[in-house]
Amino acid sequence: MHSFDTRPIGVFDSGLGGLTAVKELKNILPNETIVYFGDTGRVPYGTRSNDTIIKYVRQDIRFLLTHGVKAIVAACGTASSVALPQLNDEFGIPLIGVLNPVCQAAVKASKCKKIGVLGTTGTIQSGAYKKGICQIDQTFSVYEKACPMFVPLVENGYIESEATYIIAREYLAPLMEEKVDTIILGCTHYPLLTKVITDIVGDGVFIINAGYETAGYTKTMLSQQGLLTDSPHKGDCRYFVSDDAEKFSYLGGMFLEETIPAGVTKIDIEVF
Amino acid sequence: MHSFDTRPIGVFDSGLGGLTAVKELKNILPNETIVYFGDTGRVPYGTRSNDTIIKYVRQDIRFLLTHGVKAIVAACGTASSVALPQLNDEFGIPLIGVLNPVCQAAVKASKCKKIGVLGTTGTIQSGAYKKGICQIDQTFSVYEKACPMFVPLVENGYIESEATYIIAREYLAPLMEEKVDTIILGCTHYPLLTKVITDIVGDGVFIINAGYETAGYTKTMLSQQGLLTDSPHKGDCRYFVSDDAEKFSYLGGMFLEETIPAGVTKIDIEVF
Repeated sequence: MHSFDTRPIGVFDSGLGGLTAVKELKNILPNETIVYFGDTGRVPYGTRSNDTIIKYVRQDIRFLLTHGVKAIVAACGTASSVALPQLNDEFGIPLIGVLNPVCQAAVKASKCKKIGVLGTTGTIQSGAYKKGICQIDQTFSVYEKACPMFVPLVENGYIESEATYIIAREYLAPLMEEKVDTIILGCTHYPLLTKVITDIVGDGVFIINAGYETAGYTKTMLSQQGLLTDSPHKGDCRYFVSDDAEKFSYLGGMFLEETIPAGVTKIDIEVF
Repeated sequence: MHSFDTRPIGVFDSGLGGLTAVKELKNILPNETIVYFGDTGRVPYGTRSNDTIIKYVRQDIRFLLTHGVKAIVAACGTASSVALPQLNDEFGIPLIGVLNPVCQAAVKASKCKKIGVLGTTGTIQSGAYKKGICQIDQTFSVYEKACPMFVPLVENGYIESEATYIIAREYLAPLMEEKVDTIILGCTHYPLLTKVITDIVGDGVFIINAGYETAGYTKTMLSQQGLLTDSPHKGDCRYFVSDDAEKFSYLGGMFLEETIPAGVTKIDIEVF
C-alpha cells in the first residue's frame, strides 16, 4: 500500500541561487507544490558568522512551516553546511541540504579520488564538504577553494565576461594543480558559471551541480517515506522574498530559466 | 563666548566603507571621541529596497543615540541619499550625510560643468547626487553610473587587479564619452579604487572622495553650532558591528589605514 502527501515542499535560499534547485525539482517532480523563500533582504549568507547564519536559517524554516510543508530543502550551500547539522532534529520534518546528495554524487563520479570544492567563504571555512566526503570514503582527497566573487559576478550578469574568466582561472588554478577529476559547485549560484568553469578545466573534469543532485535526492527520500503527492495535476510554485519582489522576479528568471509569474510576495522574516 | 561639547560623534555605515570617513575625521578632529557602527550583519545596503534601507538606517541611528552622540555622520552613500532626506528632523540632533558635502565640492571643482557620479545601485537609482547638484546650480550636467561590482571587488582585495581594471573601464566609459572633468566617488568603499580610476580617466579629471569632503563639512558644521570638543587629549574611537567582530578588525585596517585596536563589539541591531 502506498501513502501520499499533497502538502507542499518548502525550499529556501539566501536569495536567488536556490532557484536552480527549484528548476530541477519542477523537472523531476512536476506535480509537487513548492513554496520558495528567498532571503533577499539578508543575502548573502556566505560572508556572515556561523551564529548569524544559524539564526537566519531557523527563521527561514519557521516561515516555511507556516505554509504546512512536508519537507524542507535548504537549497543553499552555506545554510546546508553551516546550519543544518545543528538544526536537523529540531522541527519534526525532513530537512534536506545540498551537502549529502552532492558528496555522494562526487564520490561516485571521481575515478582518481581527488575532488575539488568551490563555495562561499562560509561554506569553505566550515569544511563541511570535506567532512561529508571523508565520512563516505576516507581514501578521497578533497581540495576546497572559497570563491567570494562568484555570487556578485553572477548577480550582476557577468556570466561569460572576461573579468569572470580571469577571476575563475585564479580560483581554479590550485584545484587543477592537484589534478582533481571532479569539482563540486558548492553554491547554488555557480551552475550559471558552468560554461566558464568547463572552458577552464576542460571536458575531462566532472562538474557536480548541487541543485540537480539535491532534486534527485529529494525525490528518492520523499518516495521512501511515502511523502510524494498523488496529484495528477501540475503543481504550483509560490515565491516569497524578504526584500523587493520586483527585482526577484526580474533576476530570478535567469536562474529558473523560465519567467517567474506575477505575485511574488514580500514578507518580514525577522518576525519568525 | 565659545561653547563646547565633549559628547562623541556617531558615525555609521552599512559595513566597512565608513571607515574611510573615520580616517579623515580622526585626521582633522583628532580630539573628538567617535562611536562607529558598521552594519556588517546586513551589508550591503546598496542593493536593498528603499523601505528596507530606511528601516535599517533608523535602527543604526537609534543605536548610536544610546551612546549619547551629539551628531551623526551617515558615512554611506546609500543611507545618505535614500534615507536621510526622510529622517532629517526625526531625532533632534544633526544628521550629516555624504551627499551635501560631496555635491558642493563637485560643483566647486568642475570647470566644464559636467560631473560624473559613481555609486551603488540604490544610490544611483535614487538620483540623489543629480538632484543635489542641480539644487546648487541648474546649469550642471550630471552623468550617473551604478557600479555594483566595486564593493565586492574591494572587500575581496581586488584593489588593483586586472579584473578590477576591466570592470572599472566598463563603468567609466560612458562618463568619459560625456567628457566629465569631475567624478564623485559616491560610495565610501570607492576611495580604495582611486588609483585604478585615475589610471583610466587620467590626471585631468578631479576625483571627489566622500569621506574627505564629509569630514571637512562635519568640522565646519560642529564649529558653527558650538558642538566641537575642548578636550586637549586625543579622542578614542569605539567600534560596534552587527556581525563577526574579528573579520571587521581584519578588513577594517585596510580602510582606516591603521590597525583597529582590540575590543570591537558585536551588537544585535534588530532590537533598536
